[in-house]
Amino acid sequence: MENTHLQDYSHKRLNILTGEWVLVSPHRAKRPWQGQNEEISKEKRPVYDPSCYLCATNTRANGEQNPDYQDVFVFDNDFAALQSDSPTFEVNDGLFKAQSETGICKVICFSPDHSKSLAEMSVAEIKKVVHAWQKEYVELGAHEMINYVQIFENKGAVMGCSNPHPHGQIWSQSTLPNEVEKKDIQQRIYFASHQKSLLETYLKQELEAKERIIFENDEFVVLIPFWAVWPFEAMIAPKKAQKNITQLSDSGATNFAEAIAVITSTYDKLFNTSFPYSSGIHQAPTNGEENEHWHWHMSFYPPLLRSATVKKFMVGYEMFGSPQRDITAEIAAKRLRDLI
Amino acid sequence: MENTHLQDYSHKRLNILTGEWVLVSPHRAKRPWQGQNEEISKEKRPVYDPSCYLCATNTRANGEQNPDYQDVFVFDNDFAALQSDSPTFEVNDGLFKAQSETGICKVICFSPDHSKSLAEMSVAEIKKVVHAWQKEYVELGAHEMINYVQIFENKGAVMGCSNPHPHGQIWSQSTLPNEVEKKDIQQRIYFASHQKSLLETYLKQELEAKERIIFENDEFVVLIPFWAVWPFEAMIAPKKAQKNITQLSDSGATNFAEAIAVITSTYDKLFNTSFPYSSGIHQAPTNGEENEHWHWHMSFYPPLLRSATVKKFMVGYEMFGSPQRDITAEIAAKRLRDLI
Ligand SMILES: O=P(O)(O)O[C@H]1O[C@H](CO)[C@@H](O)[C@H](O)[C@H]1O
Ligand SMILES: O=P(O)(O)O[C@H]1O[C@H](CO)[C@@H](O)[C@H](O)[C@H]1O
Repeated sequence: MENTHLQDYSHKRLNILTGEWVLVSPHRAKRPWQGQNEEISKEKRPVYDPSCYLCATNTRANGEQNPDYQDVFVFDNDFAALQSDSPTFEVNDGLFKAQSETGICKVICFSPDHSKSLAEMSVAEIKKVVHAWQKEYVELGAHEMINYVQIFENKGAVMGCSNPHPHGQIWSQSTLPNEVEKKDIQQRIYFASHQKSLLETYLKQELEAKERIIFENDEFVVLIPFWAVWPFEAMIAPKKAQKNITQLSDSGATNFAEAIAVITSTYDKLFNTSFPYSSGIHQAPTNGEENEHWHWHMSFYPPLLRSATVKKFMVGYEMFGSPQRDITAEIAAKRLRDLI
Repeated sequence: MENTHLQDYSHKRLNILTGEWVLVSPHRAKRPWQGQNEEISKEKRPVYDPSCYLCATNTRANGEQNPDYQDVFVFDNDFAALQSDSPTFEVNDGLFKAQSETGICKVICFSPDHSKSLAEMSVAEIKKVVHAWQKEYVELGAHEMINYVQIFENKGAVMGCSNPHPHGQIWSQSTLPNEVEKKDIQQRIYFASHQKSLLETYLKQELEAKERIIFENDEFVVLIPFWAVWPFEAMIAPKKAQKNITQLSDSGATNFAEAIAVITSTYDKLFNTSFPYSSGIHQAPTNGEENEHWHWHMSFYPPLLRSATVKKFMVGYEMFGSPQRDITAEIAAKRLRDLI
């Protein structure tokens, strides 16, 4: 079986959700590293930090005071990249093409406890975050102007996070961003010719193959996708197709929260550090269409490669050619699975 | 004219070469920064470093000794991501899709002087680098197995560069990487319907608009593209269409070298630091086709945003949605132009 070549020789793998390729160079994992090392913050953070603008009862940059919140707290981003009240316009001037983009940006504090991250929160606590995400998806998506809701988290200074208080963001907007557009197209094509979800079919195949599975429970699977780009990239997805996170049953929300708890706490064990990543949920647009081809999923893109201080750089070749990885998805999955 | 809205309100701009969008949030440039700061190395490097594996006469990791080279030195990458002797195979197993990828990876030292970067080299010295790139493009491209040659440089530790000796890389391979494929498609479509180069038409429009031009000489223009992603992203391109860098005349090579000298030295002045970036040349595939739709160009993707230590993070929203920038292309171009 030629699958064995995948552990020995350079090859590219197709991301069936985006239609794009990743270059894999398994023989290269032994390269010595003489480049930049990341700093790790080993300080134990306090439960409450008087200078943190996300802690309960503190005052934010714009003078507003946070309530004395007990679990999850959502507010409008004080430095929103998208605005809801800007004019609608289009530039169509020869080869200069631009379009106005309106939207609403929010910040979501996962916990009042400044010292925690999702990795250290209980399933019950994470479930409250899931409920807040559901509420925001519904409320933001209900706006005439909003056709897509992007939920994400930047965790760790190396991922551009400027405040260690556990929090994520939601940027919602009028058009579909590039990555969502790609996944919309690939899922639509598959659904049109197979009348079933691309991702559901894929997950079934992964559950049989087993080698990239990290964890599963009744309703969810956590795995390293066949086409993973980041060294320890992972995906959480419901085994049965659901368009968006509002379709979760109560037990579904618990199962999803458990999957988040498992992957984030396993990450922390890998290099014995608070594991940095960006995570995001891709789900059906809120554009009023049926979108039955959509199967929502949550992805984690963590930059660390070999240790708490050595990350993978997506630079020259990756920027001009295509993403590239050394360690294979199968080996990464085994390393994480063995830590659970 | 609605173009003025581009300096005030959120919008997205189309990259006509890739068909993808960038989100621009001009009002957000004033956001305070409390996140990670980069380290700057202020040490003055010696002209020769006995421990550098790229300096002339030194021994590399694999035991080979570098020659006593006088200008440019090219050798096979000791940790090549692509190999020329690996087997050809395909995995087409349900939704698992992979293909072998073969190639040749080289390293190119720009100068024996360990202390320099392109920004500090003379036009005559840079012209020798251009000649080496031309030679490699021809020689690598002539291999039956090689259909695309990617020339690039990672400069600075923050861009994953593990050795400060001035050098770049060349990864050549059998298929077109993602980014090249996108540009191939957009240029082909335009050429088919207009019988002229997309980029040539675009450059004419930019030279009339003037506001994004940084520098021009007889044959080249240096500008911030309308759709730039990175804060100070720049492009160098020949005004008249050329498929690849071998079509440069002797004066063309001088003009190109001058354009490189100008942009790299201007970058260094911006934040008074050795400016990090990844640069790369996109040019026609070496796949034996006519490729008359191709117009080669060199791009610079520098991460710094506000100072020598504060960079732009392409994380959460950017990874899951689309690239996002705050400072507009027009303002970035003016800042660089004013420094020349
Ligand atoms: O080849 P180098 O310099 O060791 O490595 C650097 O450039 C490569 C090509 O862009 C990247 O894959 C690596 O992540 C980066 O550290
Ligand atoms: O919104 P924040 O946390 O200030 O900023 C962070 O996340 C944003 C969304 O991914 C990015 O655009 C910024 O570059 C990053 O620093």
